[in-house]
This record gives sequence, C-alpha cells and structure tokens, in this order.
Amino acid sequence: MALWMKSFLVVCSILISETSLAKNMILIIGDGMDDQQITAARNYLHGAQGSTILDTLPVRGAVQVLTQDETQPKTPLYVADSANSATAMATGVSTSIGRIGTSANADKDLTNLTELAIKKGLKTGLVSTAAITDATPAAFVAHVNQRGCQSPKRMDQYESYGDLVIDCALDLKSNGGLGSISEQLVDSQIDVLLGGGAKFFKLKNESKSQTLIEQAQLNGFDVAFDFDSAQNSDENKKLLGVFDKKHLEVKWQGTGGRVAEKPQFSILNWFHKYLGSVSLPDEMKCEPNPEYAQRNTPSLKAMSELALTRLHNKGGFFLMIESASIDKQSHKRNPCGSIGEAEQLFETVQLALDFAKDNPDTLILVTADHGQAAQIIPNGSMFNAYGVPISTPGAIARLQTPEGGVMAINYATNEFSHEEHTGVNVPLFANQNVKDKNGEDLIKPLIQQRDIFSLVKTYLEL
Amino acid sequence: MALWMKSFLVVCSILISETSLAKNMILIIGDGMDDQQITAARNYLHGAQGSTILDTLPVRGAVQVLTQDETQPKTPLYVADSANSATAMATGVSTSIGRIGTSANADKDLTNLTELAIKKGLKTGLVSTAAITDATPAAFVAHVNQRGCQSPKRMDQYESYGDLVIDCALDLKSNGGLGSISEQLVDSQIDVLLGGGAKFFKLKNESKSQTLIEQAQLNGFDVAFDFDSAQNSDENKKLLGVFDKKHLEVKWQGTGGRVAEKPQFSILNWFHKYLGSVSLPDEMKCEPNPEYAQRNTPSLKAMSELALTRLHNKGGFFLMIESASIDKQSHKRNPCGSIGEAEQLFETVQLALDFAKDNPDTLILVTADHGQAAQIIPNGSMFNAYGVPISTPGAIARLQTPEGGVMAINYATNEFSHEEHTGVNVPLFANQNVKDKNGEDLIKPLIQQRDIFSLVKTYLEL
Repeated sequence: MALWMKSFLVVCSILISETSLAKNMILIIGDGMDDQQITAARNYLHGAQGSTILDTLPVRGAVQVLTQDETQPKTPLYVADSANSATAMATGVSTSIGRIGTSANADKDLTNLTELAIKKGLKTGLVSTAAITDATPAAFVAHVNQRGCQSPKRMDQYESYGDLVIDCALDLKSNGGLGSISEQLVDSQIDVLLGGGAKFFKLKNESKSQTLIEQAQLNGFDVAFDFDSAQNSDENKKLLGVFDKKHLEVKWQGTGGRVAEKPQFSILNWFHKYLGSVSLPDEMKCEPNPEYAQRNTPSLKAMSELALTRLHNKGGFFLMIESASIDKQSHKRNPCGSIGEAEQLFETVQLALDFAKDNPDTLILVTADHGQAAQIIPNGSMFNAYGVPISTPGAIARLQTPEGGVMAINYATNEFSHEEHTGVNVPLFANQNVKDKNGEDLIKPLIQQRDIFSLVKTYLEL
Repeated sequence: MALWMKSFLVVCSILISETSLAKNMILIIGDGMDDQQITAARNYLHGAQGSTILDTLPVRGAVQVLTQDETQPKTPLYVADSANSATAMATGVSTSIGRIGTSANADKDLTNLTELAIKKGLKTGLVSTAAITDATPAAFVAHVNQRGCQSPKRMDQYESYGDLVIDCALDLKSNGGLGSISEQLVDSQIDVLLGGGAKFFKLKNESKSQTLIEQAQLNGFDVAFDFDSAQNSDENKKLLGVFDKKHLEVKWQGTGGRVAEKPQFSILNWFHKYLGSVSLPDEMKCEPNPEYAQRNTPSLKAMSELALTRLHNKGGFFLMIESASIDKQSHKRNPCGSIGEAEQLFETVQLALDFAKDNPDTLILVTADHGQAAQIIPNGSMFNAYGVPISTPGAIARLQTPEGGVMAINYATNEFSHEEHTGVNVPLFANQNVKDKNGEDLIKPLIQQRDIFSLVKTYLEL
C-alpha cells in the first residue's frame, strides 16, 4: 500500500475512534443533595410548581447508601459520611466511615475509576467547590485510611476515638504507603484538578525536599491559584487549579449572614411545654454572599467548562464534578447556602447536557452521596389550632420565596456546631440509561451506591 | 340473523369487553411514606442491602406535593396535610390544608375519580387502615370544607383559628350541602368501603331519623363490623366494613410499647452544651402490638383481597388502598409502628402485582401523600470524636435490626404530642407506564401530585 494511503487510513481510524468510539462520562455529585434539599431548591428557585433541570432528565432512580462498621465490616451502619460513600462510587466497594479508597478494617487499597480510565488511556478530571483534597474528590484518586490524612502536616499523627483509629503514619511513603491525599493528588496522572485547598499544597512533602506545588510542577502540572491563570495555563500540561485556601466560598447566604435560629419560648413555657408562647425567628431572604465575589470565586459551571475544554476530543474522558457545599451549608444550618450551591449544580448539569448534545456519546449521571439534616416543615405548626406554643426544639429558618410564600426549614439532628447526615436513600438522574451486552437497562429504579462504579465501568468499557 | 347467532355474538362482545377493554386501576397510598420511611422499612425488613417490593417495580418517579393558602389561593404553602394532598390526587386540583374535595377559599365541589368511574359504569372501592371517613379515603368520595366534618356530630360546629375557619354547618344537607363525610359515604354508589371508623356510622343522620348504618342498608350496603362477616356478606350488595371504632390497630410496636424518647443530658450540660454527658435511650426491637391480634384486626392485604374479589371481572374498577398509619405512627414517634404499616403496604403491593399478572390490564400506582418527620441519623454522632455530648434536641429511637445493626431514628419537628409533616417531594412507583394517544409516557421522572388524577383518568378513559 502506498504511504499516502496508509497515512490516510491512520487519520481515518483516528477520526473514527474519536467520533464514534470515544465515550465521555460526567459524574456530578451533589454532596448531601437528598430529596429535601432538591425540593427546597426547587421551591425557592423555580416555585413549588416549577421544575429543576434534574427533573427534566429522562432517567430517575434511587440509590441505597451503604456503610460498614470499621471493626466488624459485616455489620451495617445506616448513615454514611462523604468519604465512605464516595469510595463506594469510585471503587464499587462499600467501606467504613472516613475511609478514602481503602477497605473497612483490612485497609486494602481499592482500585478506583480514574485509575481504570487512565489505564485505558482516557483523560480524567476532578472538579469540586470543596478543597480538592476533600473526601469526595479524594476518593477518586487516593488511598488512605482516614480522610483526615489530607496533607503532609497530618501524616505523623495518631488519634484514637473509641473504635475509630486515625493512624496517618500507616500511609506515610516511608512506611510503604502512598502518602497523604494531597501528595497522592500531585503524584497522580489526572489531567485536570480544580477546586479549593491551596493551603494543602503549599506544604513541604514528606521528605521535606520540596513543596507539593513544586512536586506537582515536576510531575507535569501547571499550577494555578486563580481562575484566570488556570484558563491561560499550558494546554499541553496537566492542570492543578486551587482557587482558595480551603473550600471555595458559597454563592448565597441568608439576610445579613443569618442562618437557622432557635425559636424563642417564653418563660412560662419552662414550667410546662403547653404554657406560654413561642416566637419564631424573623423571616429572611437569600442574598449574595459578599465573600464569594470578593475572593473571585469561580463558579462550579466555569470550572467544569474549563475541565471539559481540556478533556474533550482526546479519545474520551471521565470527569467527576462535585457541588460540595450543599452539604457543608446544611451542616451549618444555612439553607440559603445550600440552595445557592444546588443552583450551582443545576447550572453545571445544564452545561453537561449542552455538551452531550454536541457529543452524544456522553453519559451524565447526577446523584448525591448521602442525606442531610434539613427538613421543610410547616411555617408555624399543623397543630396551631390547639393554641399552645409549638415549634421545633432545633433551629428553623423561614425563607421568603420569590413566588411569595414562606418556606420553613428545620435543622434538629443535634445541637453541635454541625448537624448530622441522614441515612435516606438518595436520588439518581441520568441523561440516558446504560445498557449491558444484552441491551438491558442497568439503571434500575433502585441501585446500590457501589453500582455507580459498575455503571461507569460498563459505559466506558474500563 | 338467527336468534342463536345473535345471542352468540352478544356473549362474544361481552367476553371481549371484559377481557380486553375492562381496565383495572389500583392506587395504593402510603400515608407519609417518604423516602426516609421507605429506607427505614427497607433496612429493618430486608437489610440495608435488600430491597422492598417497591424497588422491583419498573417505573419510579417523584411527585411534587402542592398546597394552596386558604385565604390567598395563589400563594403556595410548602407542607401539605393528608386532606389537601388526597384531594389533589382524587380531583386533580391543588387546594388548601384540611379541605376534602373542595377548592381553596371558593369551597367549590371538585369532581373526583370515583364519581367519574361510577359514571362510566366501573366498579369502585376504598380500603384504609384508618377510619374510612379519614382524610385520604374521604377525598375520593366526599366534598366538605374541612376534614373535621366527619360525622353528623360535628356538623353544627363552627370554629375559627386565625385564618382557618371550620364551618361544618355550610355542609349540612339542610343548608344545601352534602352532609358530613360519613353521610356522604353511605349516600355513595361506591361498591366496597373497608376500614375503621364504626363509631362514625352508629350516629343518627342529620335529620335524626335513622342511624347511618340503617341509611347505608337502605342504600344497598351490607354493613359488617368484623372481617368474617364482611367476607360472608351478600356479594350482590355493596359492602361497608368498619372493623374498629376509629383507626385500625397497627401491627407492630417498639419493645414494651416504647416509642422514641429524649436523650438524657447530665446536669452539667445545663450550663453549657459542650459540658457533661448524654445518655441515649436504650436500644429496642419491633414486636407485635398485642392490640392488633386482640381486636381481630384484618390486615391491609386481607381487606384488599376481599375488595379485589368483589370488584374484578365486572367490567373494570378503580380501587384506592391506603396504609394510613405509616403517617399516624410517625406523628407519635413510633418507628416500629410505621415500619409494620409499611410492611402491610408492601404485602398489599405484592397482592396487587399477583392480581395484575392474571389481569394484565391493571395499572398499579403506589405513592405517598406527603413527607413525615422521621429521619435516620447516626447511632451516636458523626462528631463523637470531639468528646462533647452530642445528640438530637428531639426524640430518638434506636432499633436493633434483624441483620445485627442499630438504626437510630430521629423525630424533632416539634415537642407537641404529634410531629409535623414535611414538604419533601414523595416517590411514585408503577407496574407500567401510562401512555397518551401518541404512545408517549405520561409518568415522567417528576410529576405534580394532581397529575395522579390525570394518569388514572387517562388509563381508565374516564
């Protein structure tokens, strides 16, 4: 065959592989985004009769979240944290609270989706509004025994809380481990890492020979500390963009920074719960969080758009995008914070759908990692007619919605500075179903969280 | 044409209409059965890795629950009660709290599904573990301005609570109304009414001329006060079976009748929330509620089976079945009560699926009317490591699950004798999708609650 003919065929085969065989996978995780959070965001952003972009996706199911006991891994726990739930999605293995890419008790490293994707020659990326070393993105790269082993600073610590042992020293490179999460990120072959957590990379590595930033650069990363620099970074290099010290600022807050507050019962109520009266906190609205603009925070959508620009048209990719602070703001009893971060997720889902329109071989999965504390409750009480003071023993925020209603949100899982997660099954949304070899739908009405791993693996043929 | 030939063709046409055109609709409502309740029941009954019968249904979606303000019907409320949510399903119109088959503010009677089904010549039935006059079944028959207008006894009452006016006199027959809910039930052409609420039928009617039982008998009902009598009732008559004074007893309770209890904080904790210690309530198990057997309570499945026997093979039917006390037990902070009643619903869904296997023209929809207060939270706290006392300010029950775990359930929407509902969107399950004339699926990933009315109307061609 003539040389020109051979070259022509090679070009053809590349074009064919890029256009028909290259598959793209966008996994979007709303941290803590259970049905209560989605309903609250729908009510506020679109009105009770409106719908979010999630509601327009053709496939909807539910995901059962599994957690194992650390010392007795056959015993289930019924409430997860982001570390074990992200590990389930990333590796297909249900593990114990706090673990990142390792098995309960046995501490075995579990192969994750980005490792499989890289092995297959796909491009990979992780985007988060949290520190990029935080539990959710970390579980798609790293293997440590506890999410707290986040940077070299924590690595010689040993802590024990009852059954829970955090022994970061186990993961030290000098002890045969893979190092802290931030070290494993800069050692990785991931193409795009965007989020917060700059402070974890400014530290020196375990051998104290260089900072993690220097180490990242040696490993082929362009490192950016603001979004403009990230956009202008060398396209032929990997990209590590960390745009705030720790987690990125959130878009919204309540009026004047207010969060949910405790109802005030009158003194008479101290004597009996049916005596006296109760005052609910003043109503509030959601307003921009000034810190978000002041710190030039990139939106989740902007970061995701940059990631897509870097990953697409290169033979397929796996991209995980997390809206992290739906959860973090719910821990802090700040419903406006959560709603704003849900909106960031919705905008990003729209971006992903637009991308999929131009690139049909793109699977978009949207899910949450676990339930959160917020509950929409009556503004007042269903039992007001009884004429006794009735309100939550927790904290309540009463949001004036743009459509003219008042939506009351309750936080009452504890009285600590941070609310608890809940154990409810979480929703799953997809732009298409995933078929097995026999053409059968793999997204069933209920799946287990570790099935997310299998879905991605099947779709990308990893 | 010869007479025998004509007769043959008539028989043929009847057979064809019964076998291919007669459609059956079974709408199963789990009162308060949101995703938290389903997850708790799944964990307890089938294990965290198990699945309920609901999870095996091929169609799953979510339903947005809508409620209108009574005085300003264009203003939304974000938490429903069973009356307005059942009215939305039964009539396709979103209304205000407490209303049964009437519109917010204007108090217009709204046509419901059983009225349309009866008009078309279909058989109809309502089955509930609550009093059959309770909000959910009532909304499928009656039209009153408040759910409290349940029996003749309440009908001359007028009550006002702020904006809320309960003026049962409006609905008196002597004032041009349709009478109380129990009167409207005995006046109805519904073929099967099974549940509790005997006490509401032993009263004399508005004109004091006869009891409602006598009136029911005059209107063609066989009336039964125990399940044996109901089973042996005249098949050619309508059937009113009321098997307890008010609501039916529930199957399960917590150990020794215990429900969720408040954690006990030590005295030191009164001075500061991070001082002292906290004791959680003892763990418990679910056990049979002795009252259930003592009162010969029929199961929801048994009642539903009887209803199906009476309704099928008669040209199609509409049957609404409610497991009412998932909600009522959650109001009372009794997780075992709710789980047992969820199990009753699951058994009934299995019955319906078995029926649909033999009768393929059967649509089964399973949904909830609104969210409830229960939340699965950590057994202890995610933040135990901080060494300070942390627990819910509400009540907590810690259930030892048959698979060897401990599932903690939190109730903290108020400190009244009854918890509040929540405003979360609720799940919808179906054995098949409903198609419009163009073959398009009508059960979308998100629908509004009033769309349930349209789905049934379309399927049964009402």
